[in-house]
Amino acid sequence: MTNVDLDQIGRDARSASGQLARAAPGQVTHALMLLADSLTGRADGIIAANSSDVERARAGGMDDHVVDRLVLDHERLRAVADGVASVAALPSPVGQETDSRVLPNGVRLSRRRVPLGVIGVIYESRPNVTVDISSLCIRSGNAAILRGGKESIETNTALAVLIGDCLAEAGLPRAAVQLIPSTDRSVVEGMLRMREHIDLLIPRGGAELVMRVAREATMPAITGGIGVCHTYVDSEADIEMAARVTYNAKVQRPSVCNALDTVLVHSSVAGSFLPRMAAMMGEAGVELRCDARALSIIGEAGVNARRAEASDYGQEFLSLTASVRVVSSLDEALSHIEEYGSGHSEAIITENYQAARRFTDEVDASAVFVNVSTRLNDGAEFGLGAEVAISTNKMHARGPMGLSELTSYKWIALGDGQIKEG
Amino acid sequence: MTNVDLDQIGRDARSASGQLARAAPGQVTHALMLLADSLTGRADGIIAANSSDVERARAGGMDDHVVDRLVLDHERLRAVADGVASVAALPSPVGQETDSRVLPNGVRLSRRRVPLGVIGVIYESRPNVTVDISSLCIRSGNAAILRGGKESIETNTALAVLIGDCLAEAGLPRAAVQLIPSTDRSVVEGMLRMREHIDLLIPRGGAELVMRVAREATMPAITGGIGVCHTYVDSEADIEMAARVTYNAKVQRPSVCNALDTVLVHSSVAGSFLPRMAAMMGEAGVELRCDARALSIIGEAGVNARRAEASDYGQEFLSLTASVRVVSSLDEALSHIEEYGSGHSEAIITENYQAARRFTDEVDASAVFVNVSTRLNDGAEFGLGAEVAISTNKMHARGPMGLSELTSYKWIALGDGQIKEG
Repeated sequence: MTNVDLDQIGRDARSASGQLARAAPGQVTHALMLLADSLTGRADGIIAANSSDVERARAGGMDDHVVDRLVLDHERLRAVADGVASVAALPSPVGQETDSRVLPNGVRLSRRRVPLGVIGVIYESRPNVTVDISSLCIRSGNAAILRGGKESIETNTALAVLIGDCLAEAGLPRAAVQLIPSTDRSVVEGMLRMREHIDLLIPRGGAELVMRVAREATMPAITGGIGVCHTYVDSEADIEMAARVTYNAKVQRPSVCNALDTVLVHSSVAGSFLPRMAAMMGEAGVELRCDARALSIIGEAGVNARRAEASDYGQEFLSLTASVRVVSSLDEALSHIEEYGSGHSEAIITENYQAARRFTDEVDASAVFVNVSTRLNDGAEFGLGAEVAISTNKMHARGPMGLSELTSYKWIALGDGQIKEG
Repeated sequence: MTNVDLDQIGRDARSASGQLARAAPGQVTHALMLLADSLTGRADGIIAANSSDVERARAGGMDDHVVDRLVLDHERLRAVADGVASVAALPSPVGQETDSRVLPNGVRLSRRRVPLGVIGVIYESRPNVTVDISSLCIRSGNAAILRGGKESIETNTALAVLIGDCLAEAGLPRAAVQLIPSTDRSVVEGMLRMREHIDLLIPRGGAELVMRVAREATMPAITGGIGVCHTYVDSEADIEMAARVTYNAKVQRPSVCNALDTVLVHSSVAGSFLPRMAAMMGEAGVELRCDARALSIIGEAGVNARRAEASDYGQEFLSLTASVRVVSSLDEALSHIEEYGSGHSEAIITENYQAARRFTDEVDASAVFVNVSTRLNDGAEFGLGAEVAISTNKMHARGPMGLSELTSYKWIALGDGQIKEG
């Protein structure tokens, strides 16, 4: 049990969100620029706190590659600071008006973007998330309540103090960003029930966390970050491009949600495509789990290939592993994706107009790609500036969630005495 | 208990939604035009079914004005048919692309509107909702699962058969609109759990139903239709306009969610405004529940005015009743609205620029009005064509929900081999 007063944190966040929503955009920019400067100017204190987290993790026997995610050094802090500076440079979505029109009765009507209010975030190890999410919430006028992982508690605490100092120096409420000072599991439980105080809950972590939030949150929550991503190599694919794009989608960063999991290839090009792809993937150390037809083409020699089990389809590998299946038609590829996809990122490689048209029309996913690596399903790549998450929800926001996706709107109607007739 | 197979209904709806999403817009228009024609062409059968509902309601001792809501005669059916024809004439939002751009790497990116999938609707007496909602769902490419009130079961059943016939004649699946053939209360329970099969649940009814859905739905749900609506008459209001607009907001149709509940008036104009408003309201039979200052100005003679109780503020009257309070400043009015409003429809009457600016900036509601009756918070008035609900949620859609608000989007990225660099 913990004696953190979530209710007080919630009330403080609500009050801060009102102040933040009304702050002039320049004031918000100022706070973010202070933060970018402080991340490098006060780097030593953060790195000291981080070293303590890292030491504890190593002593606890954490895997080296997991420890590596925890580490903040000068170079990484500089990158985090650059991220904050670029968010500071983004125009605020708050106050933007869309769908403006004059109604037949003379009322001037528009939708005006407003912040959602209070964003709750539950995340795991990487401490950079503390800063990334905070800067996006602040820029979009939202208060944030953060619950980070226990591995990075000291780093997160140091970062939260820094963020609070910058907010205060810019004349904004410290409570606009609150890190919950406990990583007790009961805190997650408590946050899931904060319907009154949290307008949107974002889980950033593994499938277990995401599914728990989807099931148990009493407020709107983002479901995302689980990507079972397919690339279908069509009968009329450019084979060279197909090999390059599938390789990139699998290898460039295998641990993320938009990385490739399954290659589907049309039987008519399997003979030319698969050996080429297998050679490239093999060199990068990718294990290919193949159906019988694919395996008979690739062979087991020279590359790391073996027979797939049923569970290899529909699985998010998050590692240098991919499943491969030969299909006899576009329809079979579409059915496979419908059955096994998670609605995250799906791609076709083709030079055929009808195949591209059907694939984009019929595949139901947050992003559908033609001749593009699924790795590009990303807020920065899409020109949104940055992202808090990649949503696979259909409600509210789908795909990369940038600043606009952290806003709601209200209708503004300006008139001179209009009434309802009739 | 009921033996309705909700799971089968859900699967059928899901399958139908796929077909509907891919149907050509012209085919959908055809189905809706057939429906508009049939509502008048086959009016006799519907009116016969309706008479049976009405007779049963009367025999059961239902109040006359509630029975009146149930009644469908030739004139009302003609109005419902006109509504369908106007929805048929609306352009389909499905397939619209927004935010189109060419990324620096040459990828052509856009957001393409897609239907949400399956919309569940739980509603009460008025049988016209069956047709209104169905036509909006069909036009926006969504399948619908409807659970109407027991009072109108025979009418609804006749209407659902009619809708199914028109869908089938246009080559669309009958299961695109399914009325659950039971009004057992366990059906509501069951629908709340249909996370797999219902993408968005819309309650259309009283506060009890809306709050239950908000609490218990396992899928995204609209909270809306509960309007505690204020009109603030500022110190610089045009008094004549203020009286006309508040009168309209209260009297034009008192039983709906965007009708006025509370009049706030600045003390400096209370003396001129309140007697004028009270005279107009009194003639229409409105009961005014006043704070001490307002009552001392209005007096109890001639008009139906009495002292308000605490519970008269923050209450949705849905009848010819309004509460009245004199405030000393705009700030006091804003605080009152923040405390008592439901985030639905709020209005200020003023000729002062700063007051209008602060009111629109600071009031947090689905629609904020300056010198306009709150009764205009309505999909048809806002030019959205029609509405399925007025949402007070901040996520997804806020205010009147028309066709666009029944859609999601997917990102479409068209390239020629682009990969993630780095």
